[in-house]
Amino acid sequence: MNVSIITIGDEILIGQVIDTNSAWMAGLLNEAGFAVREILSVADENEEIKDALQRSLSKSHVVLVTGGLGPTDDDLTMEALCGYFGVEAVFHEESFERIKKMFGKRNIVVTNSHRAQCHLPANATVLNNDMGTAPGMWIEHDGKVLVSMPGVPYEMKHLMEERVMPRLRALYAGPPVKHLTIRTAGTGESVLEEKLRDVTTEMPKEVKLAFLPDIGQVRLRYSVHGLPVEETDTILARLKTQTLDRIGEYVYAAEDISLEEWLGTVLKERNLKLVTCESCTGGFLAHLITSIAGSSDYFLGSIVSYSNELKMQLLHVPSTVLEQHGAVSRETAEAMAKGGLQVTGADIAVSITGIAGPGGGTTDKPVGTVWIAAASGNKVISEKFLFTKDRKRNIQYSAVNAMVMLKNLIQSI
Amino acid sequence: MNVSIITIGDEILIGQVIDTNSAWMAGLLNEAGFAVREILSVADENEEIKDALQRSLSKSHVVLVTGGLGPTDDDLTMEALCGYFGVEAVFHEESFERIKKMFGKRNIVVTNSHRAQCHLPANATVLNNDMGTAPGMWIEHDGKVLVSMPGVPYEMKHLMEERVMPRLRALYAGPPVKHLTIRTAGTGESVLEEKLRDVTTEMPKEVKLAFLPDIGQVRLRYSVHGLPVEETDTILARLKTQTLDRIGEYVYAAEDISLEEWLGTVLKERNLKLVTCESCTGGFLAHLITSIAGSSDYFLGSIVSYSNELKMQLLHVPSTVLEQHGAVSRETAEAMAKGGLQVTGADIAVSITGIAGPGGGTTDKPVGTVWIAAASGNKVISEKFLFTKDRKRNIQYSAVNAMVMLKNLIQSI
Repeated sequence: MNVSIITIGDEILIGQVIDTNSAWMAGLLNEAGFAVREILSVADENEEIKDALQRSLSKSHVVLVTGGLGPTDDDLTMEALCGYFGVEAVFHEESFERIKKMFGKRNIVVTNSHRAQCHLPANATVLNNDMGTAPGMWIEHDGKVLVSMPGVPYEMKHLMEERVMPRLRALYAGPPVKHLTIRTAGTGESVLEEKLRDVTTEMPKEVKLAFLPDIGQVRLRYSVHGLPVEETDTILARLKTQTLDRIGEYVYAAEDISLEEWLGTVLKERNLKLVTCESCTGGFLAHLITSIAGSSDYFLGSIVSYSNELKMQLLHVPSTVLEQHGAVSRETAEAMAKGGLQVTGADIAVSITGIAGPGGGTTDKPVGTVWIAAASGNKVISEKFLFTKDRKRNIQYSAVNAMVMLKNLIQSI
Repeated sequence: MNVSIITIGDEILIGQVIDTNSAWMAGLLNEAGFAVREILSVADENEEIKDALQRSLSKSHVVLVTGGLGPTDDDLTMEALCGYFGVEAVFHEESFERIKKMFGKRNIVVTNSHRAQCHLPANATVLNNDMGTAPGMWIEHDGKVLVSMPGVPYEMKHLMEERVMPRLRALYAGPPVKHLTIRTAGTGESVLEEKLRDVTTEMPKEVKLAFLPDIGQVRLRYSVHGLPVEETDTILARLKTQTLDRIGEYVYAAEDISLEEWLGTVLKERNLKLVTCESCTGGFLAHLITSIAGSSDYFLGSIVSYSNELKMQLLHVPSTVLEQHGAVSRETAEAMAKGGLQVTGADIAVSITGIAGPGGGTTDKPVGTVWIAAASGNKVISEKFLFTKDRKRNIQYSAVNAMVMLKNLIQSI
């Protein structure tokens, strides 16, 4: 079943905003067996929107539209939808009540523009948006489906996951697609590909393997298209065993969960309390860990000692260690982790100290040099990394590799 | 002068790759006075490409195409261009010599597919690509211009900057487009629109105002199209004054910089050292602040006291305060901020304590309840917020509003 995506917004056409929505939607649709045929970005202009609707509805069974639903005058999607379908805009009392209730709790004043946002095309079924004021809309027309959603990413994602995909899945009658996702961290795509070559060369033609790389991590997704359920399950079970056999040391989960989610589960199971001691990551590791609901069960906190003074004061790193070896050294990293355990009473600690850049690099310790240590009881492990020249990527690589070090430590104790 | 952008590649339509090329190109074109009318992403399929060319050339004077020029069989742009214009592919000796020379230096073997890459449409002028093997192409047809470039971002950027923009600028004779961006935080889109209504209703028709909302922030962008430079500058200067007059309390910058960037600049100017004391944000605020290069000049670190024990141990929050008022209270927030100043010797501190959710809410303190305090010397300000039901957004809202509190405190001392 073909899908066209339309993203509406002047900000995309002047290059102020990168359209990340389309790729996210395309990924979700693809996994569910839908084929995205085209992505079209157009301006907040009535005629342009109507022309895009015309094109997309003539090309695809399903058209997903994001953007142009805000409460301000530059948002014209609603008007264009009414114009295209030749219907009136009807006030949707229920949506307005929802906004009033939502805002009432937060003591925000409901304005006339919010009231205007609740005038929806007469042929639309409302998709409740729990994350914002603009309602989603589902319109069926001449055997085709058009969905309109706000362009704010978390509102769109909420609507796609909770409202749109269940309805689309119910419409879809194509051959089944089943996936097996395996999450790895600590090595690159080409290493994994090489180690799996004997497995992939003998796969049936109905099976595809995608390597989906992210900073410090690679997600493997096996997809089986159009085979009977039982055969599909047998194939995926065999692939799982083979994959764990070939690249098991890099695998942290044979399901689609994040590294921080996996870490949380293991810490909870083992009843271990964690503290992080961060320098160059500046709190990013603690942020990843606390992005998981319920992390207060196993995460005590983080000491982000960006300055050397705080490394000494809060983590009790001896000044002699900092003087003799520098802040970016095995000795400082290990002292930070041990200090973290001692100061907080945690069972397990990880520390990160490095040069994120762009400044601060030297010939001996160029930008991207990072020391990571993990400690528990009397055991300390530490490792030196040389990442990239880019600040943002160095922070991300450091946090991911700190979690890999925690994984290695936990599995060894 | 109108431009259409076409990006070609299956990887975009299955969501494996985010199309960042288009936004980059659109930004460059927009600054030079070109209006991007539409961005279209299509698959590596002959008919789809030809259809996209047809549409774009009928809509715009200039069509910029990226992707589908690689040496492998799935790259079909060249074939589609020949088909669309009804011309033969002609071997371009000079391009092949360039590849041989480039590869010779790096000891790479030139293959037949590289030879195939040098068969170009007979009506194309070659744009030398110094960054890779696929040549860029400039085709003039019926008074319109079509440019084809590889999709690899650094190759495309090289061709755009060195080959395409100079040629486009020579063609272009239209009036300039100029933007004024104003960054605000601490209120919503509809409040700003309401307060600016008298300004926007009397704007000349050549001026557009876009509201670009993000979590806790709204970016305003005024654009002036097609007026003489001097008049444009006068209009933008007046709009800036009027905007600051109407919504000045929410504005942190009359240029396009982030809140954390602005904060860094002010802390540096005022020579203030900052510490953050975080509970429910779990290090996210520290992460935002340290995402700015050079933040070690003004940021000492963060104490992420996720557990009550760490609030007492590391931030010296009295146990009686926690017992009497709870961890999410004005008293605890203020004690955390004061403790942060005392323990680290910072000049300014901000603290955040709240219930991010989904668990932990009560009738009195539902999920989304957050107390934020900012302290400096003997001054402490604090405020209670009620954000949303969503953990991730509560973390983001809290961090943004903590920076707004810092802004308010700094501006009052």
